[in-house]
Amino acid sequence: MHTYSKQELQDLAKNLAIGVHVPAKDAQIFAEALVDADMQGVSTHGISRLNIYLQRIQKGLIVPNAQLKIDRQLGSILTLDAGNGLGQIQARKALDLLLPIARRNGVAAATIRNSQHFGALSYYCNLAAEQGFILLAMTNCEPAMSPEGGCQAFFGTNPIAASFPTGKRFNVKIDLSTSTIARGNIIAAQKKNTPIPLGWALDHNGDPTTDAQEALLGTVLTMAGHKGYALALMVEIFSSVLSGAAIGPSIGSMYKDLDRKQDVGHFFCLFNIAAFMNLDDFIQRIDETIDRIKACRKRPGVEEILVPGERSAKNAHTHSMQGIPISKETLGELQQWCTQLNVPFNCQEAAS
Amino acid sequence: MHTYSKQELQDLAKNLAIGVHVPAKDAQIFAEALVDADMQGVSTHGISRLNIYLQRIQKGLIVPNAQLKIDRQLGSILTLDAGNGLGQIQARKALDLLLPIARRNGVAAATIRNSQHFGALSYYCNLAAEQGFILLAMTNCEPAMSPEGGCQAFFGTNPIAASFPTGKRFNVKIDLSTSTIARGNIIAAQKKNTPIPLGWALDHNGDPTTDAQEALLGTVLTMAGHKGYALALMVEIFSSVLSGAAIGPSIGSMYKDLDRKQDVGHFFCLFNIAAFMNLDDFIQRIDETIDRIKACRKRPGVEEILVPGERSAKNAHTHSMQGIPISKETLGELQQWCTQLNVPFNCQEAAS
Repeated sequence: MHTYSKQELQDLAKNLAIGVHVPAKDAQIFAEALVDADMQGVSTHGISRLNIYLQRIQKGLIVPNAQLKIDRQLGSILTLDAGNGLGQIQARKALDLLLPIARRNGVAAATIRNSQHFGALSYYCNLAAEQGFILLAMTNCEPAMSPEGGCQAFFGTNPIAASFPTGKRFNVKIDLSTSTIARGNIIAAQKKNTPIPLGWALDHNGDPTTDAQEALLGTVLTMAGHKGYALALMVEIFSSVLSGAAIGPSIGSMYKDLDRKQDVGHFFCLFNIAAFMNLDDFIQRIDETIDRIKACRKRPGVEEILVPGERSAKNAHTHSMQGIPISKETLGELQQWCTQLNVPFNCQEAAS
Repeated sequence: MHTYSKQELQDLAKNLAIGVHVPAKDAQIFAEALVDADMQGVSTHGISRLNIYLQRIQKGLIVPNAQLKIDRQLGSILTLDAGNGLGQIQARKALDLLLPIARRNGVAAATIRNSQHFGALSYYCNLAAEQGFILLAMTNCEPAMSPEGGCQAFFGTNPIAASFPTGKRFNVKIDLSTSTIARGNIIAAQKKNTPIPLGWALDHNGDPTTDAQEALLGTVLTMAGHKGYALALMVEIFSSVLSGAAIGPSIGSMYKDLDRKQDVGHFFCLFNIAAFMNLDDFIQRIDETIDRIKACRKRPGVEEILVPGERSAKNAHTHSMQGIPISKETLGELQQWCTQLNVPFNCQEAAS
């Protein structure tokens, strides 16, 4: 592992994005979103994805300078067309459009169609939390999970997320896929040639499997069976049925379908906490909730009860001190792109 | 099992509620909500609960004629005080307040504090769906689940729900608790003296148990471990931190704490589908989604892939034809209340 500073990685990602004709301001937004995922320890949604985004832009499958278009505005609702642009940029702009509406009306919501995989939902949720808002966010994704009883990939791992400001050193950050496990874990097991636990996935015929290779030809299971199925469907309806984006199995695969766009849909609902109660009162109440959770009697062998968001904040702190670890594979890709796009690789290895 | 018609059971519930001084109009709302749960096959949230509601009213722990008070209104947000009234009545009135706001602004949200267990969330969600709206609903409940790593009851089974109108004979109805299982299943196992599956609950010390008695002294597990914990916390924050209701372990138990009110909190967010897209287009898109889900290849041994809401709609159809089954225990309680409150038991056994 090589480690680099947040600022250097952001600059690198920004310059590479500019190299494929993303406007400078947008490239900055994009780079911040990517590197934030690495900071939080979610490297699967971070700069390791830059390679595929750049590839897709070069192949004409993502529009680097897409405008975010308002299809429709009624009251506190926006329906947005991402113009097949980078999801990170369009989602950030969508949030910026929603903020003044929610500030005024207490709540505002937007659907975003014609978008891409846009990284970690919690990035946008945390941005909202820092301004005293709660963003409830959902997105559909390329098909991976079958409905309960089925064995064809229909739903993506359809995550749901919300962050809440606190008086602690972290936001309460809820961000979960509705699958038992991310598909990445199965890919990792396949690479290492190790079995996967029963309950993660089904093979092509719909039988439970511990073989990672078979699992990748089959489908990932929904978390908690029919409950995860129900939640995945809820996310699908808000994100795609209601937005006009592609539905479930019609979504293009980011890595596999290198001949068509993804047409992912997102759903944002933004609440202004101050419309409900004094923000200070909210902070005091959520802090009390956190303190009481952490003071619960512990299960045998448990040292500390963590609140969702606490670990990511610790990761971000560590990475800000010690730099962000980047895998050899990702580093190689970045250096190749630097050569290809004639962008200097100005990153100094952080002392660890 | 005895079976009675929906209308007769509604009239009975209504008259018994009037007998403990619930105003006639409110008693009608209350009775409709209760019996709807029985119609959908969720008898745990139906007329079987009437006994405890009446008891609590008689003990002065629920205010039978409470007013729903608007604490605060800003833009499309209402913060409501249920006045320690019956949750079913206050939630229905809250929905009625939200509908015109959401019709105008596309979205409206309300917190409701100082309430009770208010039955099945999906009742309110289905009412909204029938009018072309999507209600996203959450509620906290009396403590039953521990946070991941803990073994003290902190969260209720904190459910989340939303219903969506379709062109089919049912709404897509998402309504799930964030626990692995309802506590009722453990109580049932204890009564039958049968073991419970591993993974349902922990004993008092936080160790996994298959002993229903031990489980009842311990805590129910969150669904999918830390994911259910995260969702339960999200529901808790929206329902209680943001509403001013009691938080987690401070909520009174409906059955056990017969000396204090519950102070449950609910959260409603209502979306006007027509603000996002033509309602007919939405219906066409959701119907297509349903058709595609049901056409998925099936797992071995599966006859039909069901969509959430389909089974409840079938139950409602069956019960409208054959009557609603009422357990001997519930029947006995109802008859006792009839005697005590001098209400005639005007129910005829439905022919089965």
